[in-house]
Amino acid sequence: MEPAWVDVPSGSDFPLANLPFGVVRPADGEATIVVRIGDHVVDLARAGIEPELTNRTSINALMASGRGGSVRERVTELLLGPARQELLHPVDDVTALLPIEVADYVDFYSSIHHATNLGRLFRPDGEALLPNWRRLPVGYHGRSGSVVVSGTPVRRPCGLVPDPTTGEPHYVATRALDIELEVAAVVGYPGANIRPDDADRHVFGFVLLNDWSARDIQAYEYQPLGPNLGKSFATSISPWVVTLEALTPFLVDPPVQDPTPSDHLAASRPWALDLHLAVDLNAEEIASTGFAGMYWTFAQQLAHMTANGAMAHVGDLLGSGTVSGPGERERGSLIELAWRGATPIGLRDGSFRTYLADGDTVTLRGWCGGDGSPRVGFGECSGTIKPAPPDERRKD
Amino acid sequence: MEPAWVDVPSGSDFPLANLPFGVVRPADGEATIVVRIGDHVVDLARAGIEPELTNRTSINALMASGRGGSVRERVTELLLGPARQELLHPVDDVTALLPIEVADYVDFYSSIHHATNLGRLFRPDGEALLPNWRRLPVGYHGRSGSVVVSGTPVRRPCGLVPDPTTGEPHYVATRALDIELEVAAVVGYPGANIRPDDADRHVFGFVLLNDWSARDIQAYEYQPLGPNLGKSFATSISPWVVTLEALTPFLVDPPVQDPTPSDHLAASRPWALDLHLAVDLNAEEIASTGFAGMYWTFAQQLAHMTANGAMAHVGDLLGSGTVSGPGERERGSLIELAWRGATPIGLRDGSFRTYLADGDTVTLRGWCGGDGSPRVGFGECSGTIKPAPPDERRKD
Repeated sequence: MEPAWVDVPSGSDFPLANLPFGVVRPADGEATIVVRIGDHVVDLARAGIEPELTNRTSINALMASGRGGSVRERVTELLLGPARQELLHPVDDVTALLPIEVADYVDFYSSIHHATNLGRLFRPDGEALLPNWRRLPVGYHGRSGSVVVSGTPVRRPCGLVPDPTTGEPHYVATRALDIELEVAAVVGYPGANIRPDDADRHVFGFVLLNDWSARDIQAYEYQPLGPNLGKSFATSISPWVVTLEALTPFLVDPPVQDPTPSDHLAASRPWALDLHLAVDLNAEEIASTGFAGMYWTFAQQLAHMTANGAMAHVGDLLGSGTVSGPGERERGSLIELAWRGATPIGLRDGSFRTYLADGDTVTLRGWCGGDGSPRVGFGECSGTIKPAPPDERRKD
Repeated sequence: MEPAWVDVPSGSDFPLANLPFGVVRPADGEATIVVRIGDHVVDLARAGIEPELTNRTSINALMASGRGGSVRERVTELLLGPARQELLHPVDDVTALLPIEVADYVDFYSSIHHATNLGRLFRPDGEALLPNWRRLPVGYHGRSGSVVVSGTPVRRPCGLVPDPTTGEPHYVATRALDIELEVAAVVGYPGANIRPDDADRHVFGFVLLNDWSARDIQAYEYQPLGPNLGKSFATSISPWVVTLEALTPFLVDPPVQDPTPSDHLAASRPWALDLHLAVDLNAEEIASTGFAGMYWTFAQQLAHMTANGAMAHVGDLLGSGTVSGPGERERGSLIELAWRGATPIGLRDGSFRTYLADGDTVTLRGWCGGDGSPRVGFGECSGTIKPAPPDERRKD
């Protein structure tokens, strides 16, 4: 059933079954929390729905209150009731803002195809997967303060990169600007030592995430403490936090893990997500894959992250790591799609890419269902590359 | 000159020249911002000093306002004026809380002696320093949500550690719980692409920091994305944020860097800090060293952290990394002091340590000046090890 007084276009990511949360600024007003329906947003505070929690600039307090579910129920009743057009804004008339105040951002590495591809590219003579990879969800802390909402331009970063001839490092604009197609979970309820089967108490919802990466800066800096400047300049997320509740019909069993994980990472409930993902470069699809085949689930990532007693906090963001499938066009980064420059990506306009050019726009899309069955989607996570800033200190 | 109506004990870390900021909860009241003098704290809001900024539970807004200097001036006037005993609390009557709301926590690796020691321990057959180490301040993002104030107990963490015989990883309590003696800078004013010579506009002050580390968990997990669970369980900081202003007399020229750093990391102003540091284990000094010999300065760390366009935010915490000097008793971690178990540390009670035992208390101390000249100190950063939690999922 869809509401009678709000048009939900056929195939929309945002039918009544979705109702994701976001934060928007109307042209004439203050930032506030909304729920999206079709191509509109519902102003929750104006509708009198928990105004003390919804007249806010992030959904953190709403998540922490545990009332997200009842808010979505009240919005459902509202939308199935008599028309209240004054509560709606067309989504094109508002500016979507970052929906969460990000606490810690931890990015994982949970696709076996991605980890294998990167291992083959960077350690051609060794085992593609390191010994720990099948034993725990490998991850690291990213920069929370660099998380931005979809639509925010991404400035090409500068950093120290060795000259290919002399090996001498120079501070230059990256020549290897890449994307990472990811999904991220948002923590809505705190806890430590969380068991995978309890993850549903703590995970509020999900967004798409693009972990922009400068591969040349990353390659030079990352030993021995991991990525830093190569990834800390920008991480984009989609503006609509799709709730776990809305996605529950799409939770499926994950792939069998071999070896069997340690008891503290063992799960009996299905936590893989049957989600379709696609990457567009300048409006042309260059990759598509599925999320259900991820080796480690968000439930296991959350269990691992808190297994040493660390608290998960409201607003924590857990990235899946780059999502790649087994096929050559199922890869979630350009370094994989173009195989580190060996097989450049051809575009319809006749140009080729090994990495991103200034002016390129990358858009991630993600949706569950469709093809006749009910659809619950994420919308888009998009960003356009701006040229590096002029800087007299650079040598390039 | 010292105030006439507040006793400042001889040799105190907190004379009138210091006046660091903290947040405390009095036995009978709400958390509020104070300035420490001798063994007392001054309640700023009660003194009528910027109450809208000081009647708070963190100093972030005060730092962001740019009024820290004028607040310290007003406290100086107050302390040199007529007695106002009602504004003081003995420091022993209040509970010191975390003084800052931590935004991003980035930990560096800026001691050449520490990096060389770790390189020798972990890569005995290779070059001790990796090629990037002298070119940029290597660092990574730590877990902001695990930063706690001095005095908070530290629970021995569990994690996956390979069995020494079979190599099979098990979820066990760490057997290699370590400390890291560090100093950290607190960002009080935001910015990107910060030059080292502009760092004084952005750095508000400093604290001592202990980056507790589980070496066995860390060793298994850290390839290829760096430390995570081995360090994310707890990071302690001292409660008093000593201002850059108070430490300016102790800024000195850093060691000569060879090779000369890239222009964007080059500095002409002195940013090494002539600070004495010591580590006590169960009230017995086991190490002491100086901070002035650090290879990379906080000004360079801040420049590096923002050189890719990333914003530094108010509340960002930049750790120096473990501070070690050239001598055998100048090492800031147990793995170095006991040389990974080869030379256990003997204590006065006849016991030995390679790593920490349950019940051990570690206290970091730091001070500038002294020995007849004016002293400005940090007080203590302390923590006591609690046993690992019982857990039926563990195999140990």
